[in-house]
Amino acid sequence: MRFERKDYQIRLSRLRSKRFFQGGVQALLLFDLHNIRYLTGFTGSDGVLVVRPQAATLLVDGRYVTQAQEEVQSADIYCYQDKVDGIVAVLDRAVEDPVGFEASAVSYDFYQKLAERLRKENLTPLSEELYSLRAVKEDREISCIRRAAQLSAGVLEAVSRRIRPGMSELDLALEIDFGAKRAGAERMAFETIVASGANAALPHAKPGRKILEYGDLVVVDYGAVVDGYCSDETCTFCLGSADDRKREIYSRVKEAHDRALDEVRSGVTCSRIDHVARACLAQYGLDSYFTHGTGHGVGLEVHEAPRVSRNTDTVLSEGMIITIEPGVYLPGQWGIRIEDTVLVREDGAEVLTKMPKDLLVL
Amino acid sequence: MRFERKDYQIRLSRLRSKRFFQGGVQALLLFDLHNIRYLTGFTGSDGVLVVRPQAATLLVDGRYVTQAQEEVQSADIYCYQDKVDGIVAVLDRAVEDPVGFEASAVSYDFYQKLAERLRKENLTPLSEELYSLRAVKEDREISCIRRAAQLSAGVLEAVSRRIRPGMSELDLALEIDFGAKRAGAERMAFETIVASGANAALPHAKPGRKILEYGDLVVVDYGAVVDGYCSDETCTFCLGSADDRKREIYSRVKEAHDRALDEVRSGVTCSRIDHVARACLAQYGLDSYFTHGTGHGVGLEVHEAPRVSRNTDTVLSEGMIITIEPGVYLPGQWGIRIEDTVLVREDGAEVLTKMPKDLLVL
Repeated sequence: MRFERKDYQIRLSRLRSKRFFQGGVQALLLFDLHNIRYLTGFTGSDGVLVVRPQAATLLVDGRYVTQAQEEVQSADIYCYQDKVDGIVAVLDRAVEDPVGFEASAVSYDFYQKLAERLRKENLTPLSEELYSLRAVKEDREISCIRRAAQLSAGVLEAVSRRIRPGMSELDLALEIDFGAKRAGAERMAFETIVASGANAALPHAKPGRKILEYGDLVVVDYGAVVDGYCSDETCTFCLGSADDRKREIYSRVKEAHDRALDEVRSGVTCSRIDHVARACLAQYGLDSYFTHGTGHGVGLEVHEAPRVSRNTDTVLSEGMIITIEPGVYLPGQWGIRIEDTVLVREDGAEVLTKMPKDLLVL
Repeated sequence: MRFERKDYQIRLSRLRSKRFFQGGVQALLLFDLHNIRYLTGFTGSDGVLVVRPQAATLLVDGRYVTQAQEEVQSADIYCYQDKVDGIVAVLDRAVEDPVGFEASAVSYDFYQKLAERLRKENLTPLSEELYSLRAVKEDREISCIRRAAQLSAGVLEAVSRRIRPGMSELDLALEIDFGAKRAGAERMAFETIVASGANAALPHAKPGRKILEYGDLVVVDYGAVVDGYCSDETCTFCLGSADDRKREIYSRVKEAHDRALDEVRSGVTCSRIDHVARACLAQYGLDSYFTHGTGHGVGLEVHEAPRVSRNTDTVLSEGMIITIEPGVYLPGQWGIRIEDTVLVREDGAEVLTKMPKDLLVL
């Protein structure tokens, strides 16, 4: 266990100091498992955390009682048969009081069940207020992500030496995944993307039986999880020689990546970072081929606050960890994406991911 | 592609024939990605399917346009910048009409955004009505699950010959995963569980660095995905010799498994199946150590309709595929679970999973 009881207690205090608790909410129902892990250390796949001003209770079903007892020190454990019954029992007298709930992590369906048992008019949906709970990372969290990035790069570096025409995308993805897990990754941060040739024009392609061919661009988007924390990095390799057009567009994407990176520091808005990348590609008439946001926060989830996109007015703070990942996708032809995970510092960005980002011709 | 345009069209027609469409709903908004895959073939990780009496439109963001165009023949494709804007645009004039939405697959948060733009009083939450949409499998679906089960067993059979004291749980889990993927599994159906010694008392343990020891019971719960369809199987092995107590409890769990299996046929309720397994263990005073339901449906998701638990009054129909997985967990000591995935027939069950279920001493 990397985090200690006091880490969780500090996080719970921070949550309790939020506006909504001061505004009269007597209990907060958390359903998002990453938030629950963040606040208690519980790593099971189902549960509810009830946070009250003086207490916190983790509700789990029978499958997770033993595990919760082992993992959780910052909350009491309550075992339920039925989740809503459990919540009602744990709230006890507070069942009549204003209760906040994590509106982005609960289905409308479940909300209805809850509203039948609690006072509907007292149920306060909270989302934006919780969205950024984990956005600023503590030193230990940064260290986990650093290790995840380091481990990932070690694996890709080794695997990249074995990439050659004739392998399938899937062979390559499996080598990366197995390498990472053997090296100690808990799991991959997301399904590893290996996309070659025309598949590389699909930003979220799945690796398939397609054979890597001479001249292909190969987009590898991958990340490992270490102690719960993700890394996220994308390299675009060229197999054999790259023609001029590929080299040219690679250098444009790299320029967009570098310019956005240069803009990262605390105090800058996320939309500004996105704008810089997009404007750079627009200079070369390539912005319409950049069909996604410039980045996103990374932590316990590979996509978390803040979003780094056109319409995000979030201001970067020191300790946030985000990706910078512009891309250009030419449908039916090929694609290029270059991505790093970076730590926001007061005066700039520290790149945590470790692979070199110049066009690597293998 | 295993399924054809007409398969998807038949599924869409079946959806359209449901009560709620006859009850005046003019459009249905689907968010669950497995349901969307089921109805269109789309395998991306974000999207909305709008089903109207005469048309179906799949809404995706820029990342998925090319992929959707390649995969989907049963619906039009619409690319959105903002999901709610997209839904409003696609509904067009139907925006004033009664609209059903998949209430279990949409967050309360998203519901609120939708309710601001559509007529709230016309928004009809649908959940139970959709929950069993995929429960009865078509022949081609059964064939996918059969292949997933076959592939899984081939891998575990090979790997089990190499299980020995000194390996870690994680080593074993990785061998299974890599073996399955090399053999052609799209992915694992869920994170493979290898739980030994006291970890085996945690029904959902994660494989860790723990070394397998002589005398350990080792619970292996795993499944592969083939063409989108999952298998799910659990074997409990003993390393070296099993003492009498372990053999005795293994035979009790096996008896509960076999009795429940004997009860499976169309027309029987799921609660009855659960009852039979539980009552069998109760005979030996072991029911309080069986802390989860007896099973669940398996298909595009590893857990889907129907639930096979104490309170499920669903009646089994021919073509449903469920698991039978009783277990006994002795906290701090060890645990045993025996699980098969089975096809419901008119007059019984066909076991699709392939590993033998007698106690295997390795």
